[in-house]
Amino acid sequence: MAMALGNPDLLSLAAGFTDNRTLPVVEVAEAVAALARRTGEPEYLQYGTNMGRPRLRQLLGEHLRRWEPSLDPADSASRVFITNGSQQALYLAVQVLCDPGDIMLVDRPTYFVFLEMLVGLGVTARSLPVDADGSSSLEGVRGLLDRMERTGEIERIKAVYFVSYFSNPSGRCLSVDEKTDLARALKERGLLPPVIEDAAYRDLYFADRPPAPGVVGLPDWSDFPCLYLSTLTKTFATGLKVGYGYCTDSEWLARMLHAKGHHDFGSANFNQAVLEEVLAGPAFERHLARIRPVYERKMQVLHETLEAENLRGCGWHWARPAGGLYLWLEAPPQLETGMDSVFCRRCIEGGVLYVPGELCFGDAPRRNCVRLSYGVLDESRLREAGRRFAAAAREAAGTKTSLD
Amino acid sequence: MAMALGNPDLLSLAAGFTDNRTLPVVEVAEAVAALARRTGEPEYLQYGTNMGRPRLRQLLGEHLRRWEPSLDPADSASRVFITNGSQQALYLAVQVLCDPGDIMLVDRPTYFVFLEMLVGLGVTARSLPVDADGSSSLEGVRGLLDRMERTGEIERIKAVYFVSYFSNPSGRCLSVDEKTDLARALKERGLLPPVIEDAAYRDLYFADRPPAPGVVGLPDWSDFPCLYLSTLTKTFATGLKVGYGYCTDSEWLARMLHAKGHHDFGSANFNQAVLEEVLAGPAFERHLARIRPVYERKMQVLHETLEAENLRGCGWHWARPAGGLYLWLEAPPQLETGMDSVFCRRCIEGGVLYVPGELCFGDAPRRNCVRLSYGVLDESRLREAGRRFAAAAREAAGTKTSLD
Repeated sequence: MAMALGNPDLLSLAAGFTDNRTLPVVEVAEAVAALARRTGEPEYLQYGTNMGRPRLRQLLGEHLRRWEPSLDPADSASRVFITNGSQQALYLAVQVLCDPGDIMLVDRPTYFVFLEMLVGLGVTARSLPVDADGSSSLEGVRGLLDRMERTGEIERIKAVYFVSYFSNPSGRCLSVDEKTDLARALKERGLLPPVIEDAAYRDLYFADRPPAPGVVGLPDWSDFPCLYLSTLTKTFATGLKVGYGYCTDSEWLARMLHAKGHHDFGSANFNQAVLEEVLAGPAFERHLARIRPVYERKMQVLHETLEAENLRGCGWHWARPAGGLYLWLEAPPQLETGMDSVFCRRCIEGGVLYVPGELCFGDAPRRNCVRLSYGVLDESRLREAGRRFAAAAREAAGTKTSLD
Repeated sequence: MAMALGNPDLLSLAAGFTDNRTLPVVEVAEAVAALARRTGEPEYLQYGTNMGRPRLRQLLGEHLRRWEPSLDPADSASRVFITNGSQQALYLAVQVLCDPGDIMLVDRPTYFVFLEMLVGLGVTARSLPVDADGSSSLEGVRGLLDRMERTGEIERIKAVYFVSYFSNPSGRCLSVDEKTDLARALKERGLLPPVIEDAAYRDLYFADRPPAPGVVGLPDWSDFPCLYLSTLTKTFATGLKVGYGYCTDSEWLARMLHAKGHHDFGSANFNQAVLEEVLAGPAFERHLARIRPVYERKMQVLHETLEAENLRGCGWHWARPAGGLYLWLEAPPQLETGMDSVFCRRCIEGGVLYVPGELCFGDAPRRNCVRLSYGVLDESRLREAGRRFAAAAREAAGTKTSLD
């Protein structure tokens, strides 16, 4: 097994990295050169502020208002803050809201790095229930809150978290109905917990902009403290590590910034200045326009390979996402896909890695799911990785057909 | 007062920023251009690793071994880690060592941002005693530990922290004797707490390299878990925000990295790649050689202005530092310099800001000290700021002489 993991030919469908071949080398170099040509003091190489560069925060406010036209332009300066990728914003949000033993409601499945962070902070995750198609419903949430009321857990709910656009890991978007039903079910109980909406992949749509507004633009959520999070990391260059939040609750925001002051008293000013250059000109949108069809094509290649390799014939199901970096696959119910499973070992021995879906559940993990990322590999390697994965699945299904 | 603070002509001797006029504009632009010219995939714009770029960590190990030749080159890869400035390393170190109510021994005076962070984490600071000249002694530390044994506090000591080179705020270096005496006093009691040595300013010497080895190079500290911290932020460009640590204790290091995985799962890879370019070539040392005389000259300008303005005649004392960014001044004992003091208000009204020394004490704060930074202002403004400061001091002393 250790030898198999050391195989230099191992292909990873596990890493949530982006495509190296479309990273914005020219755009970054031009932005830095433009900064270097500026007259006046090179303040971009000096410390910035804890909250982030004012002009970048303003540009991010404008960027957000293209999605959420109902937001007041006057609020951007006081509500937008910059972090070391959106991960730091997630950490700060939970750190100041939750004590050990508190409960966070999360979508199902959800971002497994967030779940690991909750474990680290001693916070318990409870999954929002979903139907067989992966969608949540008013009745489902009501049922969960009923059960939590009976066990007394309802008192310990301190926040809600979900990845609402081309989710990591499910690839799904939450619909307006799902979002508003959740708000209504909480309000029926007199609950107004802070909500963290993780929109890291919102800009990475393939053909059409995802229609559902974020919680900051939905009237049903207007009574809740809302933190909308996104990043320039996933869309532009992960190596720059600049995330941002828009927080509607000034006290929550102040507490996060206070904690950030202790963590690092401000994210790297240089990176912010580079992205300010990029966002102020056409480079950002041009880059997005270039990479969207690349990721759609890569998704399509992996999807078609899995279909061609008869994965559906082996009882696997998945939907084609309309954006993001992930395919979320369900194996037949009896097929375990966890770290220690026979299937996982077969995949590694066959030269392909994936993320076991069981890592992505706040509770009651499903054992037969898999997250595949098409972000990193080129098309030819994606095909090969898909073939290896499907071969392991066919072997597991005992359906060694002529395809094998 | 609010109007005075809004005065656009206010000169700040408070901010610990560096000199904008000597920031390495060309070196950074050239490093980015060199990265852009590389053939192969632009991995520097992709996510890096949680611990930091291996090559940068190796270069930082080499950089450290020029100070500490006794370190084993084979250890660098496993002991050096990269953070968002050294502040993040400080946070991670304390977060994983201390629970609320625990005690951190700190130098006197010490870095006030560190003290604020301790407050945020619920950790109590206890100052290592110093003599009238600011130095600590074996007897002094023994006395402190005696007192802490009697009160039971000794059980709650979880770590030791000091800024040992051109200290923020005192400008002092700890001597070998001070460092070894501290280790011996702790060991006499059977105490081996982790030690955090903050060497952020070590590279910023004026004429001569500070002679004392760090704790990682001193035999008396070899039994203690040691974390040596420094940064490329202060020396090269604060806007890049890249700090690093060298930790001799693998378990402590693993716990810090685990927490960092939750904070941000890795500092910006781009910044690390830029500094890797800079450190691998002559640009870093060339830049240091350029800025050392600049800061020495600026120190000298402020020092001479204060002397010429008769501050010593008003009963103030200070030493000229041999590196770093700060002058540490002691006013006459009865003159309070805190935030709410008459003297502070007079300074602000007179158009000059400073950091009240009382913020820099873990306990039993001295009320008559001041930190002045000569990092930011140019020489002419430094002179003017020094004149304003001295004028407030003369007014406070009631010695309005012909100089006024």
